[in-house]
Amino acid sequence: MAATVAFAIADPGHWLAARLAAGSRMSNSSNGTGEVALIVGGGPGVSSSSARLFAREGMGVAVAARTPDKPVLEALEAEHGVRRYACDAREPGDVAGLFEAVSKDLGVPKLVVHNIDGRVGDIFRKPITEADPQLARETILNSTISAFLVGQHAARCMLAGDLPEDGHRGTILFTNASAAFKGYPLSGAFAAASHGKSGLAQSMARELMPQGIHVVHCPIDAAIGWTREDGTRKHWLAGETRDDDMADPDRIAETYLHLHRQHRSTWTYEAVMRPWKERW
Amino acid sequence: MAATVAFAIADPGHWLAARLAAGSRMSNSSNGTGEVALIVGGGPGVSSSSARLFAREGMGVAVAARTPDKPVLEALEAEHGVRRYACDAREPGDVAGLFEAVSKDLGVPKLVVHNIDGRVGDIFRKPITEADPQLARETILNSTISAFLVGQHAARCMLAGDLPEDGHRGTILFTNASAAFKGYPLSGAFAAASHGKSGLAQSMARELMPQGIHVVHCPIDAAIGWTREDGTRKHWLAGETRDDDMADPDRIAETYLHLHRQHRSTWTYEAVMRPWKERW
Amino acid sequence: MAATVAFAIADPGHWLAARLAAGSRMSNSSNGTGEVALIVGGGPGVSSSSARLFAREGMGVAVAARTPDKPVLEALEAEHGVRRYACDAREPGDVAGLFEAVSKDLGVPKLVVHNIDGRVGDIFRKPITEADPQLARETILNSTISAFLVGQHAARCMLAGDLPEDGHRGTILFTNASAAFKGYPLSGAFAAASHGKSGLAQSMARELMPQGIHVVHCPIDAAIGWTREDGTRKHWLAGETRDDDMADPDRIAETYLHLHRQHRSTWTYEAVMRPWKERW
Amino acid sequence: MAATVAFAIADPGHWLAARLAAGSRMSNSSNGTGEVALIVGGGPGVSSSSARLFAREGMGVAVAARTPDKPVLEALEAEHGVRRYACDAREPGDVAGLFEAVSKDLGVPKLVVHNIDGRVGDIFRKPITEADPQLARETILNSTISAFLVGQHAARCMLAGDLPEDGHRGTILFTNASAAFKGYPLSGAFAAASHGKSGLAQSMARELMPQGIHVVHCPIDAAIGWTREDGTRKHWLAGETRDDDMADPDRIAETYLHLHRQHRSTWTYEAVMRPWKERW
Repeated sequence: MAATVAFAIADPGHWLAARLAAGSRMSNSSNGTGEVALIVGGGPGVSSSSARLFAREGMGVAVAARTPDKPVLEALEAEHGVRRYACDAREPGDVAGLFEAVSKDLGVPKLVVHNIDGRVGDIFRKPITEADPQLARETILNSTISAFLVGQHAARCMLAGDLPEDGHRGTILFTNASAAFKGYPLSGAFAAASHGKSGLAQSMARELMPQGIHVVHCPIDAAIGWTREDGTRKHWLAGETRDDDMADPDRIAETYLHLHRQHRSTWTYEAVMRPWKERW
Repeated sequence: MAATVAFAIADPGHWLAARLAAGSRMSNSSNGTGEVALIVGGGPGVSSSSARLFAREGMGVAVAARTPDKPVLEALEAEHGVRRYACDAREPGDVAGLFEAVSKDLGVPKLVVHNIDGRVGDIFRKPITEADPQLARETILNSTISAFLVGQHAARCMLAGDLPEDGHRGTILFTNASAAFKGYPLSGAFAAASHGKSGLAQSMARELMPQGIHVVHCPIDAAIGWTREDGTRKHWLAGETRDDDMADPDRIAETYLHLHRQHRSTWTYEAVMRPWKERW
Repeated sequence: MAATVAFAIADPGHWLAARLAAGSRMSNSSNGTGEVALIVGGGPGVSSSSARLFAREGMGVAVAARTPDKPVLEALEAEHGVRRYACDAREPGDVAGLFEAVSKDLGVPKLVVHNIDGRVGDIFRKPITEADPQLARETILNSTISAFLVGQHAARCMLAGDLPEDGHRGTILFTNASAAFKGYPLSGAFAAASHGKSGLAQSMARELMPQGIHVVHCPIDAAIGWTREDGTRKHWLAGETRDDDMADPDRIAETYLHLHRQHRSTWTYEAVMRPWKERW
Repeated sequence: MAATVAFAIADPGHWLAARLAAGSRMSNSSNGTGEVALIVGGGPGVSSSSARLFAREGMGVAVAARTPDKPVLEALEAEHGVRRYACDAREPGDVAGLFEAVSKDLGVPKLVVHNIDGRVGDIFRKPITEADPQLARETILNSTISAFLVGQHAARCMLAGDLPEDGHRGTILFTNASAAFKGYPLSGAFAAASHGKSGLAQSMARELMPQGIHVVHCPIDAAIGWTREDGTRKHWLAGETRDDDMADPDRIAETYLHLHRQHRSTWTYEAVMRPWKERW
C-alpha cells in the first residue's frame, strides 16, 4: 500500500483556500518567496514553529508525519497553509514517495529539516542492563535510519536541478539532542541514535557542501517548551518553563532560518542551542 | 602615559558630524537603536564589516586598535560614524581606560567583539624547533591575554547595570581561527594562543551565561577575503577569492548580529564559519 | 533454533587438548590467570592478535564470529587454546546464548572486546545519493546494534558477581574506527554506525564506571595490517605496510591489555591509536 | 646569572653513590636501560611517581624544578638516584641550560615529561570579573609558555641524534588537567592556560610524529592524591582519598610508561585518566 500521500487530498480545494489565505498574511520577503521547505517529523514544538515561520517568510511548506491528522498539524494547514503528508520515515519507499509528492505538489524543496527524536516510550532512562533490545533498535531506526533516508532524497532532489546563481542548491538541517555530543548515563540507545545522526550529518556536510548543499546539525541542549494556548510554555516531562529555562521552539526556528540564509562563503555546520541557565 | 583615548578627540565636532550623517543612513530598526557595540582589534576585515553593519543597524559603534589612525578606520569614522580608540589590548591599564572612555562617550557597550588574531610576522609557518620563543610569547599575549582583559572588562560593565527585561545583559563575542579546535603543524604558538582563547571563552560562557551575558566563540575556518575598491575580494597571503572560497567578512558580521540577537532561551555558544569548498 | 553453540563441541576433547597445550606456553603472570576474555567478531587482525596475547597472559579466551570455522580461528584454537563460538551479534537471542555458553564453558568473562566494523561490501565509498538504504541499515545493525547487545550482556554478567577487592568488575572494550569522531565524505552509513557505537560506549562508560566496570573506546585511525605467513604486513584494500604506516594489531592488543589492567583510580575511557605517519 | 645547574653539584659523589645504589635496585628490563628521562616540574605527585617508576625501569632520571631542594626531591635523589636541576621553565635561557646540562650529565633525554600546572594561589576559583590580570598572565606563562620551551628543546635534542632502528626518537608527554578540554566556570585563566597547552601539544604531535617523536597529551580529570607516609592518599584541597576516588599518581606513571613504549604503528596521542567515580 502506498503510504505517502498528501493528507486530506480528498479535498484539495480546502488546502488551496488555506494556502491562499495564509499567503495574504505572508511578508513579501523576496528571500523566501517561491522556496519550498519540507519538515519531516511533525509535532507541536520545533516542527510547528519552523513551519509557521517559513510560511510567514513566503515559503511553500510541507510537513510529513506518521500521523498527519493530529490537531496541531491540522492547525498548521488551516492557519498557515502548510501541506501535510503521511510518511513513515524509516521506510525507503515512504521517503521516496514523500519527496516525489512534495516536488510535484509544491516544487523541489530547498530547505529540508529532519526533526525526529526517535525515542519510544519505554526506552527513557533505562539502565543498559534493562533496556529492551527491540526498543533500542527502534530508537536507532527511527532516528538514524530516517535521517539517512531523508538526507539521501533531499540531496538527490537538490543535486538534480540547475545550479542557482548564488551557488546554494539548498539546506539540509538535522535537529538533534545533546546526546549527539555527550553520551549520558541511562540512555545508551538514544546516545547511539543521536551520535549516529551526528556522524551521518558530518559526513554529508563534508561530501555535499562542496556541491552547493548546506548541511546543518543543530543539537538542542535543553528540554523544548512550546507556547500553550494559555501563554505558558511547557515540556511534557520537564514541567513548566520559568525564566526561559527551556528552549523556545519559535526561537530555534529563527536560527534555522538564519542558517538557511547564510552565504556560502561562511556556512556554519553546527549550532548547539541551549538556554542561558542550562548546565553543560 | 595614558594610552587609551578617543582618537581625534581634538575635533569632537568632526566625529559628531560624521555620526549624525551616518545616523541618517541608519535603518530605523528598533532592535539596535541605542545599543553600543565595541570592537577590539581594527582592520579591514571582520572588524570593519562588523562596524559597518552594527552602525547601519542603529548602534553606536566604537573600534579600538593599537594604531587607530589607519585609513581603513578613518573611513569607518567618516562614512559610518564609528568612533576610534587607541588601545594596546595586552595592557590592563589600556583596556580599563578603553571601557571607561567608551562608556562615557557612547554608553555602556552591550556587544563587545574581540577580534585579535595575535600572530606576529615571523611566527608564521615555523617548525617548533625554529620558532622564536619571544615571538611565541608575544603571540600568546596578543591573543589570549588580550581576550582575558577585554572579556573581564566587558563582563564588569555588563554586570554593573540593571537587568533588562529580556534578561540579556549583553554579548561578548570572540573571533577565533580553526587553530582554536585543531592544532596544525608548523604553528605551535598560534595553536596555543587560539586554543587558549577558546578555553577562556568556554569558561566565561559557563560562568556568565547564567548571569545574563551571552558569550560567543566564532572560529573562522578560512582565509578572510574582504572586498577591495575594485570589487575583488582578496587575502594578503592566500591570494584572490574565487567562487566564494574565502570567508566574506560582511557575511561573518551578519551571523555575529544574529547571534547577538538570539533569545536567551536558545543561545548558541559556538559557531564555526567556513566556505562551502573548505576542507575540514 | 539455537544459533550460539561452542563450535566443534562435537569434539570437546580436541579443544581441551589444545587448551592444555596452550597453557603450557602461558606465562605464569598472576595478573591474568583465571580471567576469561571474550572477543566478539573474529578475523585475522585485532581479534586474533588480542586472542593470542590474552591467552599468552593466562586468560581463558573465547572468540565469537558468524562463521567460526574460518582457518584463522581454527588456528587460534589449535595453537592458543582459544574457544570458538558461532554468533550473529545482531540477534538478541544469539548474544544471550553466547554469554551463557561462555560463562558455563570458561567462566564469566572479565574482559569483553567488541570488534565488529559492520560495513558490508557495496557500502564502501558510496556517495550519499547512491548508497543502498538496505546496506546502510545492515551496516548500522552490524555495528551499533551488535555493540548494544554485547555491551548489555557483558554488563549483566559483570554486575551479577561479587565485587572484587580491587573494585574492578571487568572491562568492556569497543574497537572503533576514525569514523567514530570524524564523518568523512562518501561514507555516511559508516559514519553513522561508528558514531553510534561511540555514543553508546560513552553512555555506558558514564553509567557503568561508577559500578566498577571499565568501559573503553578505541578508535583505530588507520588501516590495520596484520603479519602474513611470509612476514609482510598487509591490508586487503590499502596494500602492503611500509615503515609501520599501518596499525599492527599485535600492538593494538598490547594497549588493550594495558587498558584492561589500569587501576580504577586512573581509568582511560578513550584511546585513539594511529601510525606515526598518519595524517589527522 | 646562570639559573640552571645540577643541584648539589658541589657534591657529585653524593649523587653518584645514590645513583649506583638505586641501580642495584633496578629491574634489568632491557627496555629502559640506558634511556634518559627528564621530568620538568617537581612535586610529590605525578613527578615523583614517574621519577620512581622510570628509575626502577633502569632509566637515568632527571627532575627539574624552580626549587629543587625540596625534601620530596631530595628523597628521590637519595632513594632512587634521580638527579635534580634548578630551572625556571618560563625562561628560555633556563630551559636551554637544562637540556644542555642533562644531556651532558646523563645523556640526551628520550622521554620528556612536562608536568607543570601553572596556577598561582590567588587565581583559584575567581570569577572572571575578580581575577587579578597579573596572576592570569603568570598562570598562562607558567603553563603554556613553559610547555612551549620544554617541547621545543626536547624536539631539538631528539631530532639531533641518529634515527634509531625502531624509528622512535623519543616521547614528549604533557600532563594536563580537565580544563584542557572543558572550560569550567570560575577558572578562566586556568582554562586558557590548559587549553593553550593542549593546542600546542596537538600541533607538535601533527608536526613531530612523522619525524619519529611520539607526542602525548594526558589530561588528568581528577584531584591527584599521593600516598603519604601513613599510607593514606590525600589532596591538599580535596581532602582524603576514599575508595580510589582520586587519581593515584603511581598509576598515572604506569600509563605514561606504557605510552612511551607504544610501537610507532599505534601511537596514542591523548589519554585522559579519571577515577571510576568521577563525574564527567
